[in-house]
Amino acid sequence: MRNLNQDTITEAVVNRFAHTPDARLKEIMGSLVRHLHGFAREVRLTEGEWAQGIDFLTQTGHITDGKRQEFILLSDTLGLSMLTVAMNHDKPEGCTEATVFGPFHVENAPQFALGDDISNGAKGAPCLVRGRVTGAGGEAVAGATLDVWQSDDDGMYDVQHAGLGHAQNRGVLHTDAAGQFHFRSTLATAYPIPHDGPVGRMLAATNNHPWRPAHLHFRIAAPGYETLVTHVFRAGDEYLDSDVVFGVRQSLVADWVERPDGSYLLAYDFVLNPCT
Amino acid sequence: MRNLNQDTITEAVVNRFAHTPDARLKEIMGSLVRHLHGFAREVRLTEGEWAQGIDFLTQTGHITDGKRQEFILLSDTLGLSMLTVAMNHDKPEGCTEATVFGPFHVENAPQFALGDDISNGAKGAPCLVRGRVTGAGGEAVAGATLDVWQSDDDGMYDVQHAGLGHAQNRGVLHTDAAGQFHFRSTLATAYPIPHDGPVGRMLAATNNHPWRPAHLHFRIAAPGYETLVTHVFRAGDEYLDSDVVFGVRQSLVADWVERPDGSYLLAYDFVLNPCT
Repeated sequence: MRNLNQDTITEAVVNRFAHTPDARLKEIMGSLVRHLHGFAREVRLTEGEWAQGIDFLTQTGHITDGKRQEFILLSDTLGLSMLTVAMNHDKPEGCTEATVFGPFHVENAPQFALGDDISNGAKGAPCLVRGRVTGAGGEAVAGATLDVWQSDDDGMYDVQHAGLGHAQNRGVLHTDAAGQFHFRSTLATAYPIPHDGPVGRMLAATNNHPWRPAHLHFRIAAPGYETLVTHVFRAGDEYLDSDVVFGVRQSLVADWVERPDGSYLLAYDFVLNPCT
Repeated sequence: MRNLNQDTITEAVVNRFAHTPDARLKEIMGSLVRHLHGFAREVRLTEGEWAQGIDFLTQTGHITDGKRQEFILLSDTLGLSMLTVAMNHDKPEGCTEATVFGPFHVENAPQFALGDDISNGAKGAPCLVRGRVTGAGGEAVAGATLDVWQSDDDGMYDVQHAGLGHAQNRGVLHTDAAGQFHFRSTLATAYPIPHDGPVGRMLAATNNHPWRPAHLHFRIAAPGYETLVTHVFRAGDEYLDSDVVFGVRQSLVADWVERPDGSYLLAYDFVLNPCT
């Protein structure tokens, strides 16, 4: 293993990982090395560009903390997150489609009863959200756990507001015996992903905007069904066809209907995929 | 750009980068996206594995600071660094070969006169290093700048010793009118790369050791010649055929000759590639 050159090094590196005890890790390392080297060889990466790449990853690591996940933003904006979702949630016709998880979910959000207002002081037009959770056969899914989160009228999630000590527009609810749910929050609006870091600079350098169309996040879990991670997107949003994270699916677009008092109503039903 | 699936998303992401003003950046982003997606698709990456990847990169970023560059270690151990060096320094026959730069170089190291001892208190057997720098036609290269750095007898570079306030086994010298140089340092020894971080865990999980064979780093610069970044490796080292960063080339292996007084002598000549 001396005198490796640009043509022989890839197989030497793959062979270095040939004694990996875990077969899956061995497969992943081999494929990773081949594709990483394939990229470098295809563009004939210069040493200066390599150094820029190291700097970019270093900056991405340094801006990442408990509340900012720049590597997820990078994966999202390179389409890797949505590709991974698409590969792992190829659901039967009729089931609600999945989309990206995003970096703003928080485990153990506050629990609410049906009908509660989860906004907890968040800025925005009042909004009632209601719907039903069923299985693929139309059966009601009672007691399903709904984890819901969204940004406020400024396009900010609670965790992005420095010093805000409590959850806003974020909560956990459970469907009733008929699989129904309803809660109050605020009107979802479009917002840019955090773009004051390396990912934002990458977007600017490639002439891309950092916006996501308005949406409401759901994670719906119930025994016997595949957990559904998805959004509902707001019809008419100007960014539906250019979502910076490639997450939009037409079946997930719905109307937020304005009512005479200035509040909004979103009605959306979910269909879960039974575990096989 | 709605309803992307695992088969259509890659081209959609590549198209997103189609309006990049800089043609080279556009080329790099397109190739990067294709190979990154190709990897994920080939192994059918699961969401759990994706999350492990995000965690790995996050840990790699967080352990990286001004004195520890875990992303370079990652690039080195995946063979990307050596591939990049090999692609960019395909030198004519007879010129000294290049190898990886590594993460332990420091700009603006102390200046020394020929004959000086650069060890500055570093632990290790005394060693005299001497040689000559010529061009490919055999012409002496006078006044070439030699940047030299190496680890000590414990396998540690000065920058790895917490609290050490000065350079050890590191310095800048210049060749004389005949292209010759000589200086004193300590005997180079094999050492493991820092392996208490994510890269070390990756090596352990893949049954690989973290060792590099003993070597002495050189960066040699002179007007009219391509700058040479290389090491001289110590003949007989047990890790010459399994260097964790894939850097060994047979032409760079030399004897450190032990002398009767217990000190060592390394004689090695360098041949620079003229700029064209």
